[in-house]
Amino acid sequence: MSQKQLAIGTLIEAYGLHPAAWLAEEAEPGAPTEIEYFKNIAQICERGKFDFYFIADTPAARTQDVETWARSPMYMNQLEPITLLTALAGATSKIGLAATASTSFYEPYNLARLYASLDHISGGRAGWNIVTSANDYAARNFGADRLPPHAKRYAKAKEFYDVVTALWDTWEDDAFVYDKEEGYNFLPEKMHMVDHEGEFFKVNGALNIARSPQGYPVILEAGASETGKEFAAQTAEAVFGVATRIEDAIAFYKDLKGRMPAYGRNPDHLKVLAGATIVVGDSAEEAKARFDHWQSLIHPDVGLLRIKQDIETDLSDLPLDEPVPEDRIPAEANHHRAYFDEIAGMIRRGLTLREICQQYTRSKVTIFGSPEEIADMMQEWLDREACDGFMITFPVIPSTLEDFVEKVVPILQARGIFREDYTGSTLREHLGLPRPENRHVVASADGGKVVANG
Amino acid sequence: MSQKQLAIGTLIEAYGLHPAAWLAEEAEPGAPTEIEYFKNIAQICERGKFDFYFIADTPAARTQDVETWARSPMYMNQLEPITLLTALAGATSKIGLAATASTSFYEPYNLARLYASLDHISGGRAGWNIVTSANDYAARNFGADRLPPHAKRYAKAKEFYDVVTALWDTWEDDAFVYDKEEGYNFLPEKMHMVDHEGEFFKVNGALNIARSPQGYPVILEAGASETGKEFAAQTAEAVFGVATRIEDAIAFYKDLKGRMPAYGRNPDHLKVLAGATIVVGDSAEEAKARFDHWQSLIHPDVGLLRIKQDIETDLSDLPLDEPVPEDRIPAEANHHRAYFDEIAGMIRRGLTLREICQQYTRSKVTIFGSPEEIADMMQEWLDREACDGFMITFPVIPSTLEDFVEKVVPILQARGIFREDYTGSTLREHLGLPRPENRHVVASADGGKVVANG
Ligand SMILES: Cc1cc2nc3c(=O)[nH]c(=O)nc-3n(C[C@H](O)[C@H](O)[C@H](O)COP(=O)(O)O)c2cc1C
Ligand SMILES: Cc1cc2nc3c(=O)[nH]c(=O)nc-3n(C[C@H](O)[C@H](O)[C@H](O)COP(=O)(O)O)c2cc1C
Repeated sequence: MSQKQLAIGTLIEAYGLHPAAWLAEEAEPGAPTEIEYFKNIAQICERGKFDFYFIADTPAARTQDVETWARSPMYMNQLEPITLLTALAGATSKIGLAATASTSFYEPYNLARLYASLDHISGGRAGWNIVTSANDYAARNFGADRLPPHAKRYAKAKEFYDVVTALWDTWEDDAFVYDKEEGYNFLPEKMHMVDHEGEFFKVNGALNIARSPQGYPVILEAGASETGKEFAAQTAEAVFGVATRIEDAIAFYKDLKGRMPAYGRNPDHLKVLAGATIVVGDSAEEAKARFDHWQSLIHPDVGLLRIKQDIETDLSDLPLDEPVPEDRIPAEANHHRAYFDEIAGMIRRGLTLREICQQYTRSKVTIFGSPEEIADMMQEWLDREACDGFMITFPVIPSTLEDFVEKVVPILQARGIFREDYTGSTLREHLGLPRPENRHVVASADGGKVVANG
Repeated sequence: MSQKQLAIGTLIEAYGLHPAAWLAEEAEPGAPTEIEYFKNIAQICERGKFDFYFIADTPAARTQDVETWARSPMYMNQLEPITLLTALAGATSKIGLAATASTSFYEPYNLARLYASLDHISGGRAGWNIVTSANDYAARNFGADRLPPHAKRYAKAKEFYDVVTALWDTWEDDAFVYDKEEGYNFLPEKMHMVDHEGEFFKVNGALNIARSPQGYPVILEAGASETGKEFAAQTAEAVFGVATRIEDAIAFYKDLKGRMPAYGRNPDHLKVLAGATIVVGDSAEEAKARFDHWQSLIHPDVGLLRIKQDIETDLSDLPLDEPVPEDRIPAEANHHRAYFDEIAGMIRRGLTLREICQQYTRSKVTIFGSPEEIADMMQEWLDREACDGFMITFPVIPSTLEDFVEKVVPILQARGIFREDYTGSTLREHLGLPRPENRHVVASADGGKVVANG
């Protein structure tokens, strides 16, 4: 058997994912809306032969605790992800380009067009991270007071997925023939209407763009709840894992892939990417010292606000240096289940509020090490089937990203577990994912029955 | 007084606006989804120093009469406009980039983000053509069976505009200070929430992107109805005129600008751009002969279908070579009023169905001429206040576009009525439009009253 290859994606925020990243010496004022800045970052990622560049998203700015968010401005000022990726497509040539878009707040027809168009413009490099969104700020921008409950959001997500993929199958791949002789631009029999009426959406029409290079953009997901895992087993092609210990990651990997055959899917057609925050140094200690410096830049109010947001209750009345009473844990998580569980776990283990603020990782392994140590860890996770690759969040960019590209990537390449160069040109090819066949072609090969792809 | 300058925008479709454009010798198969093709076209427009490149849009493919649409495939296969413009931003540096988006089928928050982001990415070159959409195909893609009535669509458009502009004023221009010393990324007092509850939308939140270079993208419109004109007088900064005779254009120009003072607006802050289809030749006859060749490529079914669509009733049961009975004109236009009126007028003048099919222009002056003749006509319209410039639709591209850029533009420049080069870098600067001040800044200068911009 040939050596299994690592997949690498990276979640990019203007300054990096650390809550105090914008305060780092290297942080450029103005970066969040400066397209040349992002082009440079994407080019560094492409130099590192990453599978994809990823943008997280929530369609809302925070409108409460604004004084505190002003000290840690993530969510407040960002280029819109689909336009940003489109701009990056012109500045890169191979790297995949993926972003989050919420099934709770988009119209399927608009979203189907935007991603299909991005896939055409980028030559088959688009990826869509399906989320149901996890905050009420977003809900309030779209006519609601609160998010619908978790199960309802996922039911809507599934129906959204069904509609959008049906729209992407409007046209068979060879529908547009541009036959000037016969006067037919396309073959009418290769156009297929969508006629959908469900609980959440009614769509009766056809997508006004040819099927895109990848058929569908690559479908990414990150749900950690039961419903989320089931949805991923059914629809996702890459999943961001949130385990922080290798044993948990191995269990998650098995669990998720084990759910796929029930949906008629091949477990190889879903890549599990472990979330990891990586800081490369000459040694682990040196890397950790850099990180500690950034930690020291976090204003205390910011730490508390992050906890409050993710445990979905305000703990700021409590003393910082005492354990948090267990009865302060809400009965149910409605937003990010994995984040919630991480904090709840720390409360149950008796950590003080200050310790929780300092140690909370948002479900990411945080790795400090020399290039060799980091490569070792990545290889171990790969070999032990804890993941198929990594979703790396660099705490402060460009420095921690550049360090990884320059120092760790060559080691992974030398070990034969990461590409020396891109061999394909689409994100599907990078990840080793099949191109979904058009359901109508499958159906006619099957004798007429239209089936969903899986 | 210094010589008044022409504004020039151009509506670009992959092959040009002629219904048989894709059958022309020069038409490249695959062009509609080929980004390099569009980059080249946009660069030609920028060489011509045009104010802006414009993309029309309807969020739907046709699902009826598909056999006929296959012969004239406009609407069937297009890159999504906002992604396409974003890609063009990277391939050009000065030209304005404008597209249609429908207030009937977008969520205000999503649209506000997309255009603000495009404005940032392009360095202040974005324009938004507000339409209410004019076909039921679109409605069916978004959960409805039919479009809402005309007046209701415009009421929604106005509320949409109010919400979107309020979102664009979330942040004062100098809100993001990136002050590392004090630890404030932005100044909380320069962030302003939107709290809107109206007939159509409820939005309570804040836009998650800094105010864009132009404040708002330039607002374009093309409504020809009474309601449409009133809405334009209140909100538009450029309007596409649909008069085909200079007298009508002069009347429209006066009419529209005359409505503005009632809204406290300066008539100079709205540019009327006359729609014109232009074919340059060595002589008018030669240009006309080229056009006649393209006309000869139109399949008869296509001509009839365009009439049916725009007069909103099927006339295909009638004999081609006889006048159309006046009682076949529907009582009311619900879609494009100007198109409807043009066809109704031809019916009333007793033209045969075949003549109507051949002569119907979709409310565009179609001009054939030598470069001097075309420059003369443009200058006459400008001097007589029939328009402030033109919205040119080139029937077949790139040839008719290139001819105009190479042969007509230099004459306009030599006459001092069109720029030799761009003097500003934003679309507002090209068009001579003021940058809207943030309503909250205006309000605090006014002593606290928040007022809309006008
Ligand atoms: C790496 C990573 C990226 C994520 N990106 C987003 C995002 O951009 N937007 C969002 O709303 N949620 C994001 N999430 C959250 C998940 O998609 C998911 O919505 C959340 O975990 C709640 O679902 P669950 O209850 O099934 O876990 C992300 C999660 C991870 C691990
Ligand atoms: C040059 C030009 C471009 C237009 N572009 C679009 C478009 O992209 N999408 C659309 O739905 N309508 C478009 N229209 C139609 C108008 O915006 C308007 O919706 C239509 O005329 C109906 O409004 P009314 O009844 O007020 O005239 C365009 C019109 C003109 C003249």
